Amino acid sequence: MQTDVTIIGCGPAGIQAAIHSSRKKVRTILIGHPEKSAIFGHEVENYFGIKFINGRDLVDAGVHQAEQFGTKVLREEVVKLEKIDNGFKVLTDHDKEIITKAIILAPGISRKKLGAEGEKEFYGRGVSYCAQCDCNFFRGRVVAVVGGESEAAASALLLKEYASKVYWVADELQVAEPLMAKVEESDIKVIHPGKVKRIFGDKLVTGIELEDGRVLEVKGVFIELGAKSSMELALDINIIPDPSGKIKVDEDCQTEVKGAFACGDVTGKPWQLARAVGQGCIAGDNAAKMVKGE
Amino acid sequence: MQTDVTIIGCGPAGIQAAIHSSRKKVRTILIGHPEKSAIFGHEVENYFGIKFINGRDLVDAGVHQAEQFGTKVLREEVVKLEKIDNGFKVLTDHDKEIITKAIILAPGISRKKLGAEGEKEFYGRGVSYCAQCDCNFFRGRVVAVVGGESEAAASALLLKEYASKVYWVADELQVAEPLMAKVEESDIKVIHPGKVKRIFGDKLVTGIELEDGRVLEVKGVFIELGAKSSMELALDINIIPDPSGKIKVDEDCQTEVKGAFACGDVTGKPWQLARAVGQGCIAGDNAAKMVKGE
Repeated sequence: MQTDVTIIGCGPAGIQAAIHSSRKKVRTILIGHPEKSAIFGHEVENYFGIKFINGRDLVDAGVHQAEQFGTKVLREEVVKLEKIDNGFKVLTDHDKEIITKAIILAPGISRKKLGAEGEKEFYGRGVSYCAQCDCNFFRGRVVAVVGGESEAAASALLLKEYASKVYWVADELQVAEPLMAKVEESDIKVIHPGKVKRIFGDKLVTGIELEDGRVLEVKGVFIELGAKSSMELALDINIIPDPSGKIKVDEDCQTEVKGAFACGDVTGKPWQLARAVGQGCIAGDNAAKMVKGE
Repeated sequence: MQTDVTIIGCGPAGIQAAIHSSRKKVRTILIGHPEKSAIFGHEVENYFGIKFINGRDLVDAGVHQAEQFGTKVLREEVVKLEKIDNGFKVLTDHDKEIITKAIILAPGISRKKLGAEGEKEFYGRGVSYCAQCDCNFFRGRVVAVVGGESEAAASALLLKEYASKVYWVADELQVAEPLMAKVEESDIKVIHPGKVKRIFGDKLVTGIELEDGRVLEVKGVFIELGAKSSMELALDINIIPDPSGKIKVDEDCQTEVKGAFACGDVTGKPWQLARAVGQGCIAGDNAAKMVKGE
């Protein structure tokens, strides 16, 4: 199969890139499973123009939009990328081979999982991997933050402004000094050392049990263990991510490899829907322009 | 009046910045007239998640969203900015004085006007200042592009892929060589020298009349004369825009002046809704973080 622009990753950044690329009338293929996008299990209230929507509806609407402009959507996984003359070769887990002039990497970031019982079951129903995204939904409720590094501390401090009570459960602490000082000034309840054994509830989370047997009644569990990115594909074409997995792009979302663009969470923080969409627009426009020789 | 973050400009970038800033619970003031935003007279079909909406409805929804998170909206104009210790002083045309810790410049860009009869009347009803934004609405129709520089040539070439026929009316030509070569290879009908006297129609544009009396029947008139930005305010606080009026920002949307951020069209091309919104998110987040000392 031959095409102009191939986008890997079917979250907001990848979909917006597909909308912009196919609207410019270049042949565009979008590869990925929308339901694997980080937004899928989330509710969204901070995206300009949409007061409230769940991630599933938002992603579905976006995929449909891209298709209407002519994007071909493959609900498959990319297993291998290769740089070839004047473009790239893409191989999927359905054994499709695509020859493409430009590529856009929008694989997203997987937040590190805790591995506790109930974590997967209650994801999006009390369990969150992004305090910044979801803080407002826990106004006046009791929540727990899990993680031992600065990211967890910052999340606990942010949540303190929304939640009625914040527990912070950390196995090992390794936090920047000024942040730790702020936590100590606050009434955040630090449980250290502490390890979450299971997350339980009914329809929604109602509590967590620690390994020492203690039970905390909470409505929200924020797992803040940092992120890992799906970076093998970048390495396939000699893009070297930084130690945190971030791919460096310029203001046109171009990577260090000509013809390869990147957008969305994989290019760095803040992990926010609007930011991802903004980058998708830039990457899609510029990939299309490159293909058209503009 | 004292506040934390003041945002100047009530288009998509400014509103998204206000949503992010006020959602982080810092006191946020948004100043501007939403109906002056460039998106206001447009229809939008390329914004992730919304299949079709007019700019007025989109901006209204966004302003309401920002207000719900606590943003105070002033439908006024900023007439003067001043750098003071630990912040800025903002003066409006209603004689309000605001002392603010951080400022976000999101004034947008005004496309240069042609000054022809009917131009204002038919804006959004056949008259457009952005081929890239609106090309798809003129599929299979006859359109005219007005302007003598490379931007107009690129717009004519883009529109050629959508419209059934493209006239390009230029008073003086000053176009980059490769673009001009592409125009010459195409069947774009160049009218040079030519000057538009008036744009006419009924509910929508039906044609233009040139100064030499010729009449062209067209459904769309793309006025591509470049842009001017509202940059006096930037100069007030010693931010020096580049010759095209663009304000330079880093990846956090921070300008060269500490505490002053910028987002949206004023930071450069592409002038696209999604890009503006993405930057608004980044500027709003970072201004709020700065105020909170994070």
